[in-house]
Amino acid sequence: MKIIVDAMGGDKAPEVIVCGAVKAATEYRVNIELIGEPGQIEALLKKHKYPKDYISLHPASEVIQMSEPAALSVRKKKDSSICIGLDLLKERQGDAFFSAGNTGAVVCASTLTLGMLLGIERPGIAILIPTLKGFSLVIDVGANIDPKPLHLLQYGFMADVYFCHILNRPHPSVGLLNIGEEESKGTDFVKETYHLLSNSHLNFIGNVEGKDLFSGKCDIIVCDGFVGNVALKVSESLVETVYTFFERHLKSNPLGMIGSAFLSASLAQFKKQTDYSEYGGAVLLGVNGVVIIGHGRSNEMAVKNAIRRAKEEIEYRVNDRIIEAINVNPVRKQAF
Amino acid sequence: MKIIVDAMGGDKAPEVIVCGAVKAATEYRVNIELIGEPGQIEALLKKHKYPKDYISLHPASEVIQMSEPAALSVRKKKDSSICIGLDLLKERQGDAFFSAGNTGAVVCASTLTLGMLLGIERPGIAILIPTLKGFSLVIDVGANIDPKPLHLLQYGFMADVYFCHILNRPHPSVGLLNIGEEESKGTDFVKETYHLLSNSHLNFIGNVEGKDLFSGKCDIIVCDGFVGNVALKVSESLVETVYTFFERHLKSNPLGMIGSAFLSASLAQFKKQTDYSEYGGAVLLGVNGVVIIGHGRSNEMAVKNAIRRAKEEIEYRVNDRIIEAINVNPVRKQAF
Repeated sequence: MKIIVDAMGGDKAPEVIVCGAVKAATEYRVNIELIGEPGQIEALLKKHKYPKDYISLHPASEVIQMSEPAALSVRKKKDSSICIGLDLLKERQGDAFFSAGNTGAVVCASTLTLGMLLGIERPGIAILIPTLKGFSLVIDVGANIDPKPLHLLQYGFMADVYFCHILNRPHPSVGLLNIGEEESKGTDFVKETYHLLSNSHLNFIGNVEGKDLFSGKCDIIVCDGFVGNVALKVSESLVETVYTFFERHLKSNPLGMIGSAFLSASLAQFKKQTDYSEYGGAVLLGVNGVVIIGHGRSNEMAVKNAIRRAKEEIEYRVNDRIIEAINVNPVRKQAF
Repeated sequence: MKIIVDAMGGDKAPEVIVCGAVKAATEYRVNIELIGEPGQIEALLKKHKYPKDYISLHPASEVIQMSEPAALSVRKKKDSSICIGLDLLKERQGDAFFSAGNTGAVVCASTLTLGMLLGIERPGIAILIPTLKGFSLVIDVGANIDPKPLHLLQYGFMADVYFCHILNRPHPSVGLLNIGEEESKGTDFVKETYHLLSNSHLNFIGNVEGKDLFSGKCDIIVCDGFVGNVALKVSESLVETVYTFFERHLKSNPLGMIGSAFLSASLAQFKKQTDYSEYGGAVLLGVNGVVIIGHGRSNEMAVKNAIRRAKEEIEYRVNDRIIEAINVNPVRKQAF
């Protein structure tokens, strides 16, 4: 098994990517191919101790920056770490690709290079979020910002397979993100999606609201990529804001300051549970290959966990199972 | 000055509405007309001590339930507390209307009964949210879920007037909620809105992301009602979820339990700062009258604060100022 890693993608690349890759190679004994500028990567690798046989290097002379327009940059920078990494994946010189770089470019290049799974029209980014009851899978959080209702049905379908096989939780419940619970609520787009989901084989529980995202009301939340992206980013920043508010109050109050001295263990545990880097990247479902997308702000822990997630996806053969589910099970096929 | 209050709207109506109205009448010495079922309201009023001259009662035989379809319920239930309250406002038998009932019905009935301000095509719900730098005004959070770009420009315009005059903060900065900061990001709808905002007289700073909602990056955040509603509800629930997570960790750890004993003052202060009920309802901007919308879960404190907000809006003549700004200032008129 070999995981292809974009060494140049992310706010703190290549430093944290190389560091995370070294940690993953050491801990999981998985082969990693780092794609990027050889001089920089070799210099960074020299700073670490790691099992040499597990890490190799493939040069890429260009880097797609975080702020570049996705489609244009993929077209122009054929020798970028993202494009080369995905070419290698297509040529089966690796089993999965991970990047914490420009998300739009990764989605675009993955779609163009790998193509879609049979029966799936658009890729969707699925992410696990912590909830009061465990975790939920939200799809799509930004791959497809102007989707059709059918795409959301397909997201529900892929997430169902993912939940059943990777997370080993059969018959996951599926909710549609809307502005109210009633079937009559929302835009025409959401109403049509509701109709498709309720007529599918999925365990569809109906509309869920923004307030249900972290309550654990359902296992899978389906939404369009624009709304999902905003909801996810609001959530990430709000956890940090709440934390900052809370710290300010603690520091502004003498009793609070005494109390906070007793709290370091709780705070650390709390931070761990709400820290995105523990959850190891998002999964790009729908493309014909295993692609894991990291947060631009990924630290080395996030990179290491994303590589672990890629390893699990390969082992559980997610895409094979999505194809099997579509082709073997006539009920599932019918939904399309 | 008289504020018309829908006594029957909200999850805990009429109890908390009557209680909040009594508190507001006592504290602010403002006249309040309660609309609803007289028997129930009189029975509740008898339980309280309050300045009798300040609270009157107007009967309404019907109630629009929280889950009813907005347009249909407004058409069918002409004798509902929402419809009668807005009729009274239109007839100038009061100066503002407050309801914590069915938001869609309040928006629909307000638009039909009061009409729009000259130059404004659609109403928008504006809400103040706490940020790391103070607060921001987000518009729209659910009045108009399928808007045109021009509507968002008009929201920016109204929010600008609101910020200048009510909040006494001239030249507020305006951001457009999007999935990335670059001008090229987002759907066609968002790109067109960006173009309109950047060519207006507003202090437009460009796109902001979900992560900027609580950072205080700009004073006003403009978005479509669907996205705004989801973002707001995600935020509300996430604050509660984070709080629950944190409490769990405190209780699961002996040092945490000792620490938490010192923290009651900080926790109370923190809760107050992040508690929606302190902010006193949302403002329905664009209709020809002062309308304040409360959270369905409003408690008596939220009701009292919403009535205070209505009083301030009347005193500061928000709608007159929006009309003045459109008609007097040629630069502002030009934007339309």
